[in-house]
Amino acid sequence: MAKGSAKDERAVTPQSENFSDWYNDVVLRAQLVDRGPAKGTMVIRPYGYRLWELLQSALDGRIKDTGHENAYFPLFIPESYLKREAEHVEGFSPELAVVTHAGGKELEEPLVVRPTSETIIGEMMAKWIASHRDLPLLLNQWANVVRWELRPRMFLRTTEFLWQEGHTAHVDEADAMRETLQMLDVYVEIARDWAAIPVVPGEKTAGERFAGALRTFTIEGMMRDGKALQSGTSHYMGTNFAKAFDIKYADASSGGQQYCHTTSWGMSTRMIGAIIMAHGDDKGLMLPPKLAPHQVVIVPMGKGDAAGPVLEAVDALVAELKALKVRVHVDDRPQVSMGFKFNDHEMRGVPLRIAIGPRDLENGVAEVARRVTGEKESLPLAGLAAAIPGILDEIQAAMLARATEFRDANIHTVDTWDAFLEATNTGWARVLHCGQPACEDDIKAASAAATPRCIPNDGEPEEGTCIRCNAPAAYGTRVLFGRAY
Amino acid sequence: MAKGSAKDERAVTPQSENFSDWYNDVVLRAQLVDRGPAKGTMVIRPYGYRLWELLQSALDGRIKDTGHENAYFPLFIPESYLKREAEHVEGFSPELAVVTHAGGKELEEPLVVRPTSETIIGEMMAKWIASHRDLPLLLNQWANVVRWELRPRMFLRTTEFLWQEGHTAHVDEADAMRETLQMLDVYVEIARDWAAIPVVPGEKTAGERFAGALRTFTIEGMMRDGKALQSGTSHYMGTNFAKAFDIKYADASSGGQQYCHTTSWGMSTRMIGAIIMAHGDDKGLMLPPKLAPHQVVIVPMGKGDAAGPVLEAVDALVAELKALKVRVHVDDRPQVSMGFKFNDHEMRGVPLRIAIGPRDLENGVAEVARRVTGEKESLPLAGLAAAIPGILDEIQAAMLARATEFRDANIHTVDTWDAFLEATNTGWARVLHCGQPACEDDIKAASAAATPRCIPNDGEPEEGTCIRCNAPAAYGTRVLFGRAY
Repeated sequence: MAKGSAKDERAVTPQSENFSDWYNDVVLRAQLVDRGPAKGTMVIRPYGYRLWELLQSALDGRIKDTGHENAYFPLFIPESYLKREAEHVEGFSPELAVVTHAGGKELEEPLVVRPTSETIIGEMMAKWIASHRDLPLLLNQWANVVRWELRPRMFLRTTEFLWQEGHTAHVDEADAMRETLQMLDVYVEIARDWAAIPVVPGEKTAGERFAGALRTFTIEGMMRDGKALQSGTSHYMGTNFAKAFDIKYADASSGGQQYCHTTSWGMSTRMIGAIIMAHGDDKGLMLPPKLAPHQVVIVPMGKGDAAGPVLEAVDALVAELKALKVRVHVDDRPQVSMGFKFNDHEMRGVPLRIAIGPRDLENGVAEVARRVTGEKESLPLAGLAAAIPGILDEIQAAMLARATEFRDANIHTVDTWDAFLEATNTGWARVLHCGQPACEDDIKAASAAATPRCIPNDGEPEEGTCIRCNAPAAYGTRVLFGRAY
Repeated sequence: MAKGSAKDERAVTPQSENFSDWYNDVVLRAQLVDRGPAKGTMVIRPYGYRLWELLQSALDGRIKDTGHENAYFPLFIPESYLKREAEHVEGFSPELAVVTHAGGKELEEPLVVRPTSETIIGEMMAKWIASHRDLPLLLNQWANVVRWELRPRMFLRTTEFLWQEGHTAHVDEADAMRETLQMLDVYVEIARDWAAIPVVPGEKTAGERFAGALRTFTIEGMMRDGKALQSGTSHYMGTNFAKAFDIKYADASSGGQQYCHTTSWGMSTRMIGAIIMAHGDDKGLMLPPKLAPHQVVIVPMGKGDAAGPVLEAVDALVAELKALKVRVHVDDRPQVSMGFKFNDHEMRGVPLRIAIGPRDLENGVAEVARRVTGEKESLPLAGLAAAIPGILDEIQAAMLARATEFRDANIHTVDTWDAFLEATNTGWARVLHCGQPACEDDIKAASAAATPRCIPNDGEPEEGTCIRCNAPAAYGTRVLFGRAY
């Protein structure tokens, strides 16, 4: 047991009491992270990192399937690069970490630690692209980035975080927009099919756009406290960065020089925060089987003479499960009680727990408990391994269904300000809005900080007047508002 | 074609003329890297990054097989941490990049951008380890690190590089040394079985140890110019870092507090430099099939009406090869000549090239050319795909044999100073040495900068006098000296 084990056994703060304390308790006690020494940094512990690796592997596969290649660009960006795109530097300046000294000397030009890599990648794209035959240029990188955070939260807002950032260049707007929406779809798919989170894809309003983008798309996930978490974004930059970095190509027909249209899109370790808050309960984490480091934990029971045969049965089951590529972990710690182990696996969100004791063995059964429903059943040991992949699929589906039901129960289509306040207190409001930034600010101030999350991509056409100011509604469809992380 | 294609077609500088220019020509023209804007940084382009991903995947598999878990620690380390281990700070101080400003303010304590992570991981280990039951603690991280370089070389010495760094804590010296040597073995295996480089594993002399280590082990590869490249290192730290960071555990028997014995070990993007220089020739790169991004390139030939049936045959072959998990690439660029393509694939080191033209198709054959030998053969199209994995294995073995032959031909066991000079001019010298740092310095100054590369692990026992100063030889075996990168 690690230091502080006495404290670890204490239950977490209930979600209903204080969701934020619940979150902090869970990330630390499930050993996903620890606090780093520098302000706002986190250490991602093995259990948390394995979750990230599994997510990464799924997403990397989709990024490659869609024709992108991974590359790696430098961490340090000359300060002057940031300044070339006016909105970009304005957006990121307050969050920059700056290297002023290196190799024992003061640098002639300070180096910025990348907060995102549009600028340095733009500089290289300009060098690599000459002709329309070089397009589209489809790049991605897995990297750490740094954004100085005043109010850090583990996974959600940390000074340093891990992510992938895709950067692509295209001949025209149509091709760049196809890319922007394609990658948004990939994020929807990863969230839904791997993380069991039914995110809502849509476009950000002007005030919430990425610094330097013409259009920003997002996937918004609903957390168990009804707040929204932006869990991935995809941006169409138009020719903003192409002009700032001189990314041009010779046209196929005329041979004339044209600016490229660029995109960027990213998903980060923040997604782990989404998984924690979209599924967890007062017992702790609840991990979707497809991303769980341990999909199954087996707890052998029985002492003395009875232990041997149980361990043999467990070994056989483990071998069968491994052959089926199930990620299985055996908890045979001698120094801790069954009760502690069960609580620990619940805290760590293991989807399926199998307990086998001497009496089970006599009866040829095992006790199988599902984290998502709490349901326990006694299943025959014969054929158990073969049944597990199917049970894991059921759990994955049950988690998505549970999250979808919760999301749908907490999105309300409303047309009065009172109903808006009520809806955004517990979830999201689907409303008509004028689209004016001043009105967005007014709504934020007059409510418990509700902001426009997105204009859903699949919204029904609808006209009318703004929920707040009665001016004519913009966008031709309803907007989702909610409190957000 | 990218900008500068005219220049790309020019042959590289011959190795015999200037090896260093050859290297620079190859890394740029094979599109492995480009220069980054900040001094000494590199952009790893998709072809180079894919090579790294394949190496990473092989090494990560072995790291996990041997019981280690991946984690991630912060990039920024408080400056004070570095100072806690005296030798460590002395070794790394001159190379540090320092963040002094962040979020628009000057920081109270400057943050160092990690040059390596012993200190920050030591701090966390102290928090996580309480009892002997927490040991061994076996961690690894994949990360970028920064060391300010005065004379940067792509892959070999760059201001920022990518690597894995393993960090482990153990109950005693015996267990920590077992770990240190186990990971050295893993590096030998990766170099030999994946990169086709027959490295020599051994211990560094005192002067070449890692800053803060009691013992440093290395794998040394021989490059085609006879120089050595240190390609991976594994360190036994004793209790140096445990004392600096208070990493202690309660003993199993007495319950008393004991310091842990720690290790660290790393392999980096430098290994790509090893692959380039251990195998390349005047035509460019020569990649071992197991790490080649494209193991096979297929070049369809024929124009007009003849093109269709050739492309159909190529498609069928590609489908079969993909089913066999062969990494195959089709070069159907219409705008470049066959000659250009062939040169380009040789430059990029593709192990196997298959050319199919209309006449080949009539005869039911394809021309298959091996990069390592230059050998071309006409093979029947029927059954060709099935034969490819075997041919790739042959190429992998041939590359290891070629590198081993070259290495063995260029290591000389010598006993006179003149013979030493001759041996270290073209390769390495296997000599008896007194082990005195002053004598090492003298040898370096009196030769073309020959330094002790390692005391090979498998050296025969031998006593005698020093090659340079005639004092009694140390180590009980011969030492390898050579010029090094």
